[in-house]
Amino acid sequence: MVFWKRLFNNTTPATTSQYPQFPGELVEVSKDGSGQSQIVFSTDRDIDLYELEELCDSVGWARRPLRKVKKALDFSFLVGSMWEIRGNRRRLIGFARATSDHAFNATIWDVVVHPSYQKKGLGKLLMKYMIKKLRSEDISNITLFADPQVIDFYRRLGFMLDPEGIKGMFWYPD
Amino acid sequence: MVFWKRLFNNTTPATTSQYPQFPGELVEVSKDGSGQSQIVFSTDRDIDLYELEELCDSVGWARRPLRKVKKALDFSFLVGSMWEIRGNRRRLIGFARATSDHAFNATIWDVVVHPSYQKKGLGKLLMKYMIKKLRSEDISNITLFADPQVIDFYRRLGFMLDPEGIKGMFWYPD
Ligand SMILES: CC(C)(COP(=O)(O)OP(=O)(O)OC[C@H]1O[C@@H](n2cnc3c(N)ncnc32)[C@H](O)[C@@H]1OP(=O)(O)O)[C@@H](O)C(=O)NCCC(=O)NCCS
Ligand SMILES: CC(C)(COP(=O)(O)OP(=O)(O)OC[C@H]1O[C@@H](n2cnc3c(N)ncnc32)[C@H](O)[C@@H]1OP(=O)(O)O)[C@@H](O)C(=O)NCCC(=O)NCCS
Repeated sequence: MVFWKRLFNNTTPATTSQYPQFPGELVEVSKDGSGQSQIVFSTDRDIDLYELEELCDSVGWARRPLRKVKKALDFSFLVGSMWEIRGNRRRLIGFARATSDHAFNATIWDVVVHPSYQKKGLGKLLMKYMIKKLRSEDISNITLFADPQVIDFYRRLGFMLDPEGIKGMFWYPD
Repeated sequence: MVFWKRLFNNTTPATTSQYPQFPGELVEVSKDGSGQSQIVFSTDRDIDLYELEELCDSVGWARRPLRKVKKALDFSFLVGSMWEIRGNRRRLIGFARATSDHAFNATIWDVVVHPSYQKKGLGKLLMKYMIKKLRSEDISNITLFADPQVIDFYRRLGFMLDPEGIKGMFWYPD
């Protein structure tokens, strides 16, 4: 974890305007054996659908028709992506998106960090980035549906189960 | 309950094209002492915000800025309303809306039936109308967040709590 130098909680996040090839916010700088790399967050929707599919494959999610994935990105309120940048190569290493009524509520879906980058604090940074973006749009009720194995991950971020007994419910076609 | 004549499960719902003043689907016809009335469902977004506020007031919900309510209606994927029509008078008696990514997921919010019209099966019809509309748009994952006192209401409609341990979680600003 100390491996990563945090820039996220600085007053103004460093932008990547110095990296004109990529619109986003520079959040992490790390140095390892193979030279410097940056972790950059972005809300740009122009994501290669095959690269996104590969990321989702890497955590074992079922494949979805790319046509529908494209539509879901277009109609999400917020699309957050996390990239590792080395020189002029970039790699999609994390993703999340949120639906919203643009006024009161947002619901976060499809949170994922590539297994090679998990357990370094990056999932937490990605979620904080999503919350910051939603808050900056004046959304105050942020919800999500958590798989049982990640409830504690979200709880550490301040998400609550069943506040005042409110419960998530699901309807699927027969 | 027998008071209402159900038209909802007919193959093609009767439309109110015979009532040109109102775009919607005729769902119920009832006769009581004061003459015939129709219950009509609509997805028209052109709802008087004051009339909606009155409906929400009637079940004790906290007031919300009308400017934000307007925005939320504009950016909801589906807005369902339920009206009682007597002669050429119409009254808003039920409401629900859904956010969505237009592809996979929808989340239903703000389900309400006016207290004078509750416990007659109309809330159930309103929810079936919402589900039907979402299904017709090929949305298969319908979710909502239920207050504790209405969990059974949704359960009767086929909504499940925690399928495979998935749980709804909430984040609010401090
Ligand atoms: C869930 C996921 C996004 C977490 O990403 P990550 O980068 O590994 O998480 P972080 O390293 O930022 O962890 C942040 C904190 O949560 C904890 N945490 C991470 N995963 C956890 C888990 N599955 N259960 C409990 N705690 C977890 C970490 O220990 C860390 O705790 P700390 O702040 O006390 O150090 C990632 O594991 C993933 O993509 N999983 C597969 C897809 C998935 O299940 N997505 C969620 C669907 S609802
Ligand atoms: C919840 C609400 C929409 C239900 O509307 P309604 O028109 O009274 O419901 P219906 O008459 O269609 O009831 C359908 C079925 O659910 C049952 N039901 C209704 N309200 C219920 C409740 N609060 N708890 C348990 N069961 C309930 C009915 O008995 C009926 O059962 P049946 O099919 O076996 O006969 C309405 O009570 C309401 O607007 N409440 C205030 C606002 C609110 O709480 N909204 C939900 C926020 S999450």
